[in-house]
Amino acid sequence: MKNLNGTILIVLITIFNVFGQLPDRKFDIDEVTAIVITDPQNDFLSPEGVTWGVVGKSVEENNTVENIEELFKLAEANGIKVFVSPHYYYDHDHEWKFEGALEKLMHDISMFDRGDQLNKKGFKGSGADWLEQYKKYIDKDFVTLVGPHKIFGPEQNDLSLQLRKQKIDKVILAGMSGNLCVEAHMRELIEDGFEVAVVGDATASAILPGLDGNAAAQTNFKMISSHVYSTEELKNDLKNKK
Amino acid sequence: MKNLNGTILIVLITIFNVFGQLPDRKFDIDEVTAIVITDPQNDFLSPEGVTWGVVGKSVEENNTVENIEELFKLAEANGIKVFVSPHYYYDHDHEWKFEGALEKLMHDISMFDRGDQLNKKGFKGSGADWLEQYKKYIDKDFVTLVGPHKIFGPEQNDLSLQLRKQKIDKVILAGMSGNLCVEAHMRELIEDGFEVAVVGDATASAILPGLDGNAAAQTNFKMISSHVYSTEELKNDLKNKK
Amino acid sequence: MKNLNGTILIVLITIFNVFGQLPDRKFDIDEVTAIVITDPQNDFLSPEGVTWGVVGKSVEENNTVENIEELFKLAEANGIKVFVSPHYYYDHDHEWKFEGALEKLMHDISMFDRGDQLNKKGFKGSGADWLEQYKKYIDKDFVTLVGPHKIFGPEQNDLSLQLRKQKIDKVILAGMSGNLCVEAHMRELIEDGFEVAVVGDATASAILPGLDGNAAAQTNFKMISSHVYSTEELKNDLKNKK
Amino acid sequence: MKNLNGTILIVLITIFNVFGQLPDRKFDIDEVTAIVITDPQNDFLSPEGVTWGVVGKSVEENNTVENIEELFKLAEANGIKVFVSPHYYYDHDHEWKFEGALEKLMHDISMFDRGDQLNKKGFKGSGADWLEQYKKYIDKDFVTLVGPHKIFGPEQNDLSLQLRKQKIDKVILAGMSGNLCVEAHMRELIEDGFEVAVVGDATASAILPGLDGNAAAQTNFKMISSHVYSTEELKNDLKNKK
Repeated sequence: MKNLNGTILIVLITIFNVFGQLPDRKFDIDEVTAIVITDPQNDFLSPEGVTWGVVGKSVEENNTVENIEELFKLAEANGIKVFVSPHYYYDHDHEWKFEGALEKLMHDISMFDRGDQLNKKGFKGSGADWLEQYKKYIDKDFVTLVGPHKIFGPEQNDLSLQLRKQKIDKVILAGMSGNLCVEAHMRELIEDGFEVAVVGDATASAILPGLDGNAAAQTNFKMISSHVYSTEELKNDLKNKK
Repeated sequence: MKNLNGTILIVLITIFNVFGQLPDRKFDIDEVTAIVITDPQNDFLSPEGVTWGVVGKSVEENNTVENIEELFKLAEANGIKVFVSPHYYYDHDHEWKFEGALEKLMHDISMFDRGDQLNKKGFKGSGADWLEQYKKYIDKDFVTLVGPHKIFGPEQNDLSLQLRKQKIDKVILAGMSGNLCVEAHMRELIEDGFEVAVVGDATASAILPGLDGNAAAQTNFKMISSHVYSTEELKNDLKNKK
Repeated sequence: MKNLNGTILIVLITIFNVFGQLPDRKFDIDEVTAIVITDPQNDFLSPEGVTWGVVGKSVEENNTVENIEELFKLAEANGIKVFVSPHYYYDHDHEWKFEGALEKLMHDISMFDRGDQLNKKGFKGSGADWLEQYKKYIDKDFVTLVGPHKIFGPEQNDLSLQLRKQKIDKVILAGMSGNLCVEAHMRELIEDGFEVAVVGDATASAILPGLDGNAAAQTNFKMISSHVYSTEELKNDLKNKK
Repeated sequence: MKNLNGTILIVLITIFNVFGQLPDRKFDIDEVTAIVITDPQNDFLSPEGVTWGVVGKSVEENNTVENIEELFKLAEANGIKVFVSPHYYYDHDHEWKFEGALEKLMHDISMFDRGDQLNKKGFKGSGADWLEQYKKYIDKDFVTLVGPHKIFGPEQNDLSLQLRKQKIDKVILAGMSGNLCVEAHMRELIEDGFEVAVVGDATASAILPGLDGNAAAQTNFKMISSHVYSTEELKNDLKNKK
């Protein structure tokens, strides 16, 4: 429709072809930036968790468990606040009258189950509990635990409000699983007006026959977020800021 | 964590392996079901639109232009309401202080540009206008035009409200582009409590070097929605209901 | 601007003048109707709760404690689902960098305080706990406890989603306090596309010098909701349906 | 429940009694502060508008027309961005299957009617058009016109996003009508994490027999927002900042 813009587009396409990626947006880590981690829980990250059969390969290839731990360490060392958005399913969630494909699966395999929000019976060490090696960070004051999300995104919890109440404008996002909860958080935080970067290798996703969740997630992170970090790059960026 | 569930999981994984897909959710088209089409506009679907260089191949392979038209025809023939969620960028949107990767690109190439919501100067036939062959449907009463979305999802428009005000509970979703606006609408409508099916081949997505938007979209449609139709399958389903 | 409509308006104004109220909307209680109760907790409803000094008079005048209990009884007897939206403040909520007038006050007086969502220490019998006489209902299966709201409305919890997952379209609303959480829930549920009626005398509000929260709430309930019931009227309506 | 806090409460109640109002929150106007005006349109503010019979008295008593104009002037003189959130009803909005009391009334009297978002026929000078004396401000670059809200709040438009995209954190709110759209915007912006002050006398509300919308609005502004300005006070505050 717009020939002038057609020319600009060809230039942009050429940039894609030469550099093999989208032109990257500047992401400057400052005092209004926080780290958000989704679902750092056993059912996704422990070999004994209920989803290891489908996510384990991606977790190992991306080195996700260690990379998420590195984010906790970097946050504590650099005075960056961390917000954890967990996934819990309560007894009444099993009475829902309809669900999408993976929602149904998660309920069927009792993923992230807790009785209710006033009930911690059997919680310690369960699939809904934190991965053991993260507990020492999550217990500290630099980490805020927000309410549980109920499908994949933060639409039903207080993540955005807790960030705003701390005057946070920018988010560095990671956690589990990549194309479900991390991507849903990325998309909703962007619609809520946050600048969002993602740490690509501090996520992992289900890989099923013909369905590569990790490839989908990494593609959408690059097309939608402001910047995709590797954990190593983020570490270097923070070192250089000091 | 849960050995019994581990066993159930293995059974489920076996199902994936045998059938090559997730167990599908029942999606029953009834009187509370509507069709939602995102961005049926020139800048995505016309060879002269500003994004044809990156989406054209996917549009042609999926037969997207014809499949979206088929959805309009099926809706009219079967008494199904259609809601169109368009994408317009106004002059003031070009003053935003930050954007994600593709948001930036869309602004740079003047995609979907209109002066403002009270200004139709130059609109007719522009990249923001409907693809010519859809106008005869969109002008009819079975189609409701909701407000524009501003990033990718319906968080900033009245789509959900317009559906609810018509007592619609279920949505069959299609349009452009697959991994951006269609997927964002799928995710948000699900978080809003709608049952959502997607017509996979009535969408298409940008394909860039190393970034296959269509593959990402089709993966996430299958993992997240209640059902992924082909246009042909939907046509047959509706024929059988009569 | 529109003289014809001016005439219609005069007719409507006349109706207001004659009947002393807005023309009422039909509200038909059916199988997609649920009851929602906000904050049925000690800090609002017990004479020992921290806000009794400002809400006690309104609670007693409206007979709120008994009327809310009547709603639980009516729901159980008539097979109507009840959703409870509670108010909890966690330790980290006390670190917010800004608040509105009554938000600040609620934090200052330690209203609804709990350590965090994984911590029930000191909860039993505290201001955040249910009013004792409601526990026997809330423990039953016809009541669903959704996540806590964090300011006044359900924007940060899963109330809407839990209602939609049960295919609920209509809500009868009551609880504490009238012009804050009840009204905020009424407004947000309406924006979310629910039909909402309020049981006016199953709410009560803070009354401060020059600030009559109850009058404000009752005015806005009548102007905004589909119907304002008294508890007695609701009881009769349900009796007549049998 | 908490005796210590009971004491604090008594102190706070005493403060109310002495000063006749809630302890006020500091509201510091800075470079992240914007002004938001709802519905500065003929149907609310012109003696020929369809609601003048119910809002005219309150508009005149509060001096609302002049006070809103003063806000436009102050904004322009002080380099403060203004965002206008309008109210338009399209043809399809008249097909809604249910409405609340005043929603129904607004539709019945053809308030804010436009054909659709791509149709300006008959718009100029209609009830949906700006009050004539505001046009010279709204046409300038310091004013951003966001999408229409559809019930009372900004849940269905892009107000929050447009504010965030300009890195705005704080809002000074005014417009029409007080207990409906202004209050709904105040509540939703607060739930979205903005700091919100209201200019009480730059609003007005419907007053019906037994239903004083203005009293309700002013009560809730004081209880919920961070600060309630008078137009005069805001003018002085801005003068002192220079």
